[in-house]
Amino acid sequence: MLVVMKQDATQDDVRAVAEAIEDLGYKAQPMPGGHRTTVGLIGNDGRVEEGVLANLEGVLRIIHVSQPYKLVSREWRGESTEIALSNGVTIGGGDLVVMAGPCSVESRSQILESAHAVAGSGGAVLRGGAFKPRTSPYSFQGLGVEGLEYLAEAREATGLAIVTEAVDTDGVKLVAEYADIIQIGARNMQNYSLLREAGRSNKPVLLKRGMSATVKELLLAAEYILVEGQSRVMLCERGVRNFDNHARNLFDLTAIVTINELSHLPVVADPSHGTGATRKVPPMARAAVAAGADALIVEVHPDPAKAASDGQQSLTPRQFEELMGEIRPIAAALGKGVATPDRVPQGALSAP
Amino acid sequence: MLVVMKQDATQDDVRAVAEAIEDLGYKAQPMPGGHRTTVGLIGNDGRVEEGVLANLEGVLRIIHVSQPYKLVSREWRGESTEIALSNGVTIGGGDLVVMAGPCSVESRSQILESAHAVAGSGGAVLRGGAFKPRTSPYSFQGLGVEGLEYLAEAREATGLAIVTEAVDTDGVKLVAEYADIIQIGARNMQNYSLLREAGRSNKPVLLKRGMSATVKELLLAAEYILVEGQSRVMLCERGVRNFDNHARNLFDLTAIVTINELSHLPVVADPSHGTGATRKVPPMARAAVAAGADALIVEVHPDPAKAASDGQQSLTPRQFEELMGEIRPIAAALGKGVATPDRVPQGALSAP
Amino acid sequence: MLVVMKQDATQDDVRAVAEAIEDLGYKAQPMPGGHRTTVGLIGNDGRVEEGVLANLEGVLRIIHVSQPYKLVSREWRGESTEIALSNGVTIGGGDLVVMAGPCSVESRSQILESAHAVAGSGGAVLRGGAFKPRTSPYSFQGLGVEGLEYLAEAREATGLAIVTEAVDTDGVKLVAEYADIIQIGARNMQNYSLLREAGRSNKPVLLKRGMSATVKELLLAAEYILVEGQSRVMLCERGVRNFDNHARNLFDLTAIVTINELSHLPVVADPSHGTGATRKVPPMARAAVAAGADALIVEVHPDPAKAASDGQQSLTPRQFEELMGEIRPIAAALGKGVATPDRVPQGALSAP
Amino acid sequence: MLVVMKQDATQDDVRAVAEAIEDLGYKAQPMPGGHRTTVGLIGNDGRVEEGVLANLEGVLRIIHVSQPYKLVSREWRGESTEIALSNGVTIGGGDLVVMAGPCSVESRSQILESAHAVAGSGGAVLRGGAFKPRTSPYSFQGLGVEGLEYLAEAREATGLAIVTEAVDTDGVKLVAEYADIIQIGARNMQNYSLLREAGRSNKPVLLKRGMSATVKELLLAAEYILVEGQSRVMLCERGVRNFDNHARNLFDLTAIVTINELSHLPVVADPSHGTGATRKVPPMARAAVAAGADALIVEVHPDPAKAASDGQQSLTPRQFEELMGEIRPIAAALGKGVATPDRVPQGALSAP
Repeated sequence: MLVVMKQDATQDDVRAVAEAIEDLGYKAQPMPGGHRTTVGLIGNDGRVEEGVLANLEGVLRIIHVSQPYKLVSREWRGESTEIALSNGVTIGGGDLVVMAGPCSVESRSQILESAHAVAGSGGAVLRGGAFKPRTSPYSFQGLGVEGLEYLAEAREATGLAIVTEAVDTDGVKLVAEYADIIQIGARNMQNYSLLREAGRSNKPVLLKRGMSATVKELLLAAEYILVEGQSRVMLCERGVRNFDNHARNLFDLTAIVTINELSHLPVVADPSHGTGATRKVPPMARAAVAAGADALIVEVHPDPAKAASDGQQSLTPRQFEELMGEIRPIAAALGKGVATPDRVPQGALSAP
Repeated sequence: MLVVMKQDATQDDVRAVAEAIEDLGYKAQPMPGGHRTTVGLIGNDGRVEEGVLANLEGVLRIIHVSQPYKLVSREWRGESTEIALSNGVTIGGGDLVVMAGPCSVESRSQILESAHAVAGSGGAVLRGGAFKPRTSPYSFQGLGVEGLEYLAEAREATGLAIVTEAVDTDGVKLVAEYADIIQIGARNMQNYSLLREAGRSNKPVLLKRGMSATVKELLLAAEYILVEGQSRVMLCERGVRNFDNHARNLFDLTAIVTINELSHLPVVADPSHGTGATRKVPPMARAAVAAGADALIVEVHPDPAKAASDGQQSLTPRQFEELMGEIRPIAAALGKGVATPDRVPQGALSAP
Repeated sequence: MLVVMKQDATQDDVRAVAEAIEDLGYKAQPMPGGHRTTVGLIGNDGRVEEGVLANLEGVLRIIHVSQPYKLVSREWRGESTEIALSNGVTIGGGDLVVMAGPCSVESRSQILESAHAVAGSGGAVLRGGAFKPRTSPYSFQGLGVEGLEYLAEAREATGLAIVTEAVDTDGVKLVAEYADIIQIGARNMQNYSLLREAGRSNKPVLLKRGMSATVKELLLAAEYILVEGQSRVMLCERGVRNFDNHARNLFDLTAIVTINELSHLPVVADPSHGTGATRKVPPMARAAVAAGADALIVEVHPDPAKAASDGQQSLTPRQFEELMGEIRPIAAALGKGVATPDRVPQGALSAP
Repeated sequence: MLVVMKQDATQDDVRAVAEAIEDLGYKAQPMPGGHRTTVGLIGNDGRVEEGVLANLEGVLRIIHVSQPYKLVSREWRGESTEIALSNGVTIGGGDLVVMAGPCSVESRSQILESAHAVAGSGGAVLRGGAFKPRTSPYSFQGLGVEGLEYLAEAREATGLAIVTEAVDTDGVKLVAEYADIIQIGARNMQNYSLLREAGRSNKPVLLKRGMSATVKELLLAAEYILVEGQSRVMLCERGVRNFDNHARNLFDLTAIVTINELSHLPVVADPSHGTGATRKVPPMARAAVAAGADALIVEVHPDPAKAASDGQQSLTPRQFEELMGEIRPIAAALGKGVATPDRVPQGALSAP
């Protein structure tokens, strides 16, 4: 931490800052410059509150040098994290993993049909919400446990792994029972009770970036999960809030690169929420792969026009198949294959 | 809802849209224009998903005309909501209500000292966090129930009402037992399980705007609380995320005016989080009052330099007293007084 | 400037950074810390490009400590700048100055009628665009020199000073001939040829903040004007771009406070562009005064429903008169009067 | 244009709106709905100001249905614009065009060395600024005409076409004399005098998106150029302003897709400004190609550590060569080649 002094700060002001730093148990190193003095606080372990120093006489501003996160940091652990799923697919293991399925589980037949379409076109993980956090209390909120059961049945039928969202601490336990990956949604990225509970479960976690979360805040939210003992966390870029509404969100593909620089955790890209429009999903899915995403998560629905949610950004099974055809050569250009489940159950590729 | 067609949409495209609308059980009204046709969907009750229509042939875009919220809307209820507290103070009742206190409850003496300072300068409600949602898992997370007990003791001693935050559903029950107002924090504005639980408690709720929530999303989050039966909700503007870091947040005072236009719920302004810097709090508190806020919530700490959190934006008791002196004439210019508790316990104005 | 090294940077990396700094002619001061080393560059005069250092081995990031502006800075000149106009009114001189008038000069009678209304209610400066930068090439672009002549006539008739916008270098000369204050609009805040030309004229400049300019960029843009010799510059907050469209712009009143801290230049607030809606102008004008603005600039039109531009955010003369009545007591609460021209020509207060 | 009425608007209010619309010379079509009435304005030619209607009694808000741009619109002209340069390369013609070179022209040898590197690795257009708009008046502002002459010499030597920026109306004439493409920079995107002047020159224009311009504003800025008669315009995505500083800008690749949907003009992507960091340029260049950009513009400098500007985001010639190797297979996956100049002068590929 650096305390930047005003140009007209006196020697006494500088001395008072240095003493305040030493009172806190750290070492102070004044650095006189051409126009002003800066005082370094040496040995900050992330627990120094700037309030202690910001209001002292002669202080212009405080600069944070250290990153406040640790376990998620690539400086802490150089080797990339690989997350192996029970169906033989590994996220972060070199090959591209494609997760797909409807926004919400709406019925047994809808999710089975979706799962067969996803598996048939080469996806590895089935997505589908049983508990839906919706902006309006009047929107469809999901089938709950019934939805989880249909998802489990779809896994049996297709060999796909399952990712689905938990929206509260009770939900984490339920979801952990049925799913292979627990999703924490964008609205809950800083719901710390939920993050802690997910960190105490024994399942990998897919953590979505909040609607206007910085990459640093996303990493700190992941830190809450790792602190509880769960290190199999993947971070998901899904677009952030912006002044322009030409797309539902501003899909921040550069975040994939930044996260790769700062953290060892794998990165998932969500072009469906990232763009909000069916026509924009395929080019942006290609772009995400080209930028280096470890996985994609894409909304696919047997009949988007009848979807209970997110129909405007869902692909049909046929559009999804075309998308898979478009991303394979992009992945290949980066030296990657597309991961497929090693256990495909009998009859998985035929319709139910 | 309006479906805007492309210029080159055919008559068949328009007909297909009209049929899709009627299939959904609504009335379709095509409106041919100079360059393009727009098809109105008449009778939308807020449950139409645009996915049903957005991907039809010839559709350019969908425009939502109706507001998706109801109970919070001034169109639904013209009369402003007044929230009477047990200490005789009413929020939204014409006079300005000032809530103040430390970010966190740190100790018995700290919160008692704060409460006496707040009461002594004319505040009506004591704030102080017992459960703290913090961006980093390594930051101080609050004293929990012990903190709630100190708050209750401070109420006994001073006659101030208590507002404190609940961060999960179990916390709502606890907080409702001790406090006069349950605060839902910015990070949890779209934590719907929490909102529903707060809506089922018997205490008024102070709902803070999320870091990048639109006013519409804030109103929809409040709708979750009202739907459960709790109508005594106040909305709090506390600054939103922005590209410029000249202040911690961008304090959106115009939102006070917008909320007053759209909703009957009272509005609280938080210049401490809204600006993030002690020196900026007094002018922006004045501005919030001038813009028409029903209440202020301000961070005050007996010794900000030693605060466990938010010291850089806390006022000292003396600065708070000066602030009260600055806002009284502004409130008076709007024809308002500053509300004071009607039951001030014996000895409340002397230090503990 | 500070060069923050990675945790695993070697001694050689640190040495190479220090050498690169010394090659540039500055002094390097390595500061070893608990987890990483930071290297200070001492004596930066604002001309160091970070590219020189950012890509060296082992460098994590570069932090700028010095402010890159000088002449506009309060550190450079502690005393606040006062700008005296020829009609006896001073901006930044303690009293509140109110500038008002239509968005565009539309006709002789419209601007004369506006000027009489403004003067009659206690305004001191008449605004009105003769050259209009419009987002669409098909919108009304202003009357040009004819408009300037009407403005000059209105000054003669009322004693108001004139502020009007210049949109290119030729325009600066023309505007300087007719007006008392040259306005540089938000879209041109970083049009450096225009800024330099304005800096070479002999008239005070009102510089509007760009639609998404940081306060720092606004100060740097002003620096371009001061560098050319013109020190009578006022900075105008007029709202910035944001993710929420509940108002046309997000009116950043905290910027008034920040500019006052960082710069000696006076600050003007524009609640008309800041909010974009007639109904929102009065409360936000009051808030701007309460926050400490030196002046207001407000759109007033004799018949907003017929305005060629910005009718939706213009006040009628009567609404303006009410506004003046609302802001006087707010200004008084801050110990300020409302400045009035000392030379009011005969008959100025009767309609033309 | 649609005028949405409040729920409690009276029949008289609706009638007054309809009459106001007809007074303006358009047709009004009231559309009574379940909760409220909407009044359509039929035949809007883009010149209706909403101020005329927004403040009428009973009006809730105004919705714009028509796009205010015409000539740039794909609805106006379905066929994609192809821009053929004199060196045989066509932008928007199917193959990917790569533009590269230093931020600023710094010396004859620097630009010649850059040009040979760009040509040698397969680029088609040389970029390099002779007139530099800089945020600070104390930064390097470019070599001016001398820089243009060096660029022309580099073209002779290598067969590359030249793109360079004009910052004022005099500059447009100069640049048009020397360059193949006139660049309008982000800061000047709404400098309408400059846009009009560029539209009157006989050279193609590369128009960069403003730092916080919406896609719609970018298209309207382009409309200013087309209105003057110049239809060979390409639009450049270069990142927009955002709340997170993990990268210099937020590179909005989805805008490429949106522009392709809305306009027939070709799209250039600038991953150098889009990310601001050398290490992030290659993955984001790949992503831009995968998203469907017609061209890339990339900063390349013989010695980035000594660059007068933007060194932190420049590639070395060797990194540029590697980049070209990475993007070829991505382009191929989309069925595209990489365009090369058809006239490569003798000795162009050897160093000067």
